[in-house]
Amino acid sequence: MIERLAILGVGLIGGSLALALKQAGRVGRVVGYGRGRANLDEALALGVIDEIAASPEAAVAGADRVLLAMPVGAMAATFVRIAPHLADHALVTDAGSTKQDVIAAARAGLGARIARFVPGHPIAGAEKSGAAAASGDLYVGRNVILTPLPENAPDDVAAIADLWRACGAQIAEMSPVEHDLIFAAVSHLPHLAAFALVDELAGRPEAELFFRHAGSGFRDFTRIAGSSPAMWRDIALANRQALVAELDAYLSRLSAYRDALAAGDADTLMQSFSRASQARSRWHGNNTENDE
Amino acid sequence: MIERLAILGVGLIGGSLALALKQAGRVGRVVGYGRGRANLDEALALGVIDEIAASPEAAVAGADRVLLAMPVGAMAATFVRIAPHLADHALVTDAGSTKQDVIAAARAGLGARIARFVPGHPIAGAEKSGAAAASGDLYVGRNVILTPLPENAPDDVAAIADLWRACGAQIAEMSPVEHDLIFAAVSHLPHLAAFALVDELAGRPEAELFFRHAGSGFRDFTRIAGSSPAMWRDIALANRQALVAELDAYLSRLSAYRDALAAGDADTLMQSFSRASQARSRWHGNNTENDE
Repeated sequence: MIERLAILGVGLIGGSLALALKQAGRVGRVVGYGRGRANLDEALALGVIDEIAASPEAAVAGADRVLLAMPVGAMAATFVRIAPHLADHALVTDAGSTKQDVIAAARAGLGARIARFVPGHPIAGAEKSGAAAASGDLYVGRNVILTPLPENAPDDVAAIADLWRACGAQIAEMSPVEHDLIFAAVSHLPHLAAFALVDELAGRPEAELFFRHAGSGFRDFTRIAGSSPAMWRDIALANRQALVAELDAYLSRLSAYRDALAAGDADTLMQSFSRASQARSRWHGNNTENDE
Repeated sequence: MIERLAILGVGLIGGSLALALKQAGRVGRVVGYGRGRANLDEALALGVIDEIAASPEAAVAGADRVLLAMPVGAMAATFVRIAPHLADHALVTDAGSTKQDVIAAARAGLGARIARFVPGHPIAGAEKSGAAAASGDLYVGRNVILTPLPENAPDDVAAIADLWRACGAQIAEMSPVEHDLIFAAVSHLPHLAAFALVDELAGRPEAELFFRHAGSGFRDFTRIAGSSPAMWRDIALANRQALVAELDAYLSRLSAYRDALAAGDADTLMQSFSRASQARSRWHGNNTENDE
């Protein structure tokens, strides 16, 4: 039983954890802190949190579990602020989409308390936002990645895993490096590719004509281009080493398509499209639950 | 009233036109021709068509309306075969995703009868396939693009427009060049971009690990990579001039992201992501009906 849970950043991700733990009867009191007062008021009115804290320091005082669920770019300053105020028994985790940079920020900010930080990344809904979008069911059947540190005690990792499992999630463990490589490829690159396509068209004089005739293929391909620009700027920069490598591989692949097209090379296109179509169909058959 | 409608290629697109015209009481008899006998048998059993023709020539004999709804790469040979067998009053149209190449094929194949060919492109469902997927409601609220030829009589263009409107569709007219430029950008390029991403990941030793952690962003971005490889090879090559130009613009945009990332240039990323996110949100608010 968690006596006091501090949620720093009471949006979809943080709010849904609070609601799910409440529904599971696993938490006593939830205290929330965030930048937007209206959002915090709404979270309180909806019962997502039980108390609004005036600062991150006040939020974590006396808390036995602390979740950082703000944009990754804001985490470094938060670690610095909360470090002196953490209870001795407190365990800290996060919901950041990148792990190596968050861990570096945690090491710098938490200092000797780094052992009590267990890094995490729930793979769930990044599109809706705000406490009003929170749901106690968000994590049911979802994956939560934990990237434990060498300093973490196994019991502490187990306690954070247990917290997410109580929300209905499955746990996968991997190294921070592996996490960032995988998500550069399957999440961060697709976001940049979608932003790039929409911005390219939106900047043309005849943009309205293009958008008017765009159909469901375009709609789905570009859905993630509606995501938060600031959040994705932070993620892209935080994971830039892996992401530049993925962009280079993708640019190379698209350039090969370009050259095949210009040369009228039907076989190269057919082989690549066929491999992709088969892989996509196999994947879709196996995966329907990873929502992000 | 159409006495006899010939559908060459009885899949989702051709079959749905047949069903919609039947539901509207606008067609007497539908005769179908296609390469797959099992599919034609199913179309007959489902009442999508009333008769199976043994050849394209037999299908168009006596028909007053003819729809070519096969892959664009197969249309040139079909125009050649049907030309001598078209009734004097017959009007021919097509459902090809590219227009300049189909028109060139029609000019070559139909010769002096080119005036009776009104090129078209219904923007509707390319993912499910086969006569069994056909629906009389497919075109309700959808856009159908017509790209009339200088040789077309206005009454003939109106007759083809009327046929699609009877299925619930809206008609947009544009030039074949304009059509191919627009769809290179909003449809053909996104398909290649999705194929490229999936093939890139599928070819890696650790592909299974990547796909296991792919979420809903990846799912939607790559949905169109599950499309027919042969159909998209044909479309890409048919529209290669416009598509190479779009690929070049996209490569340039992605390269700029790559350079901004490598340089840690947050402003460039933020500005582009913001323009894209705003444009995507505006578009989504205005468009929910273009299905393809």
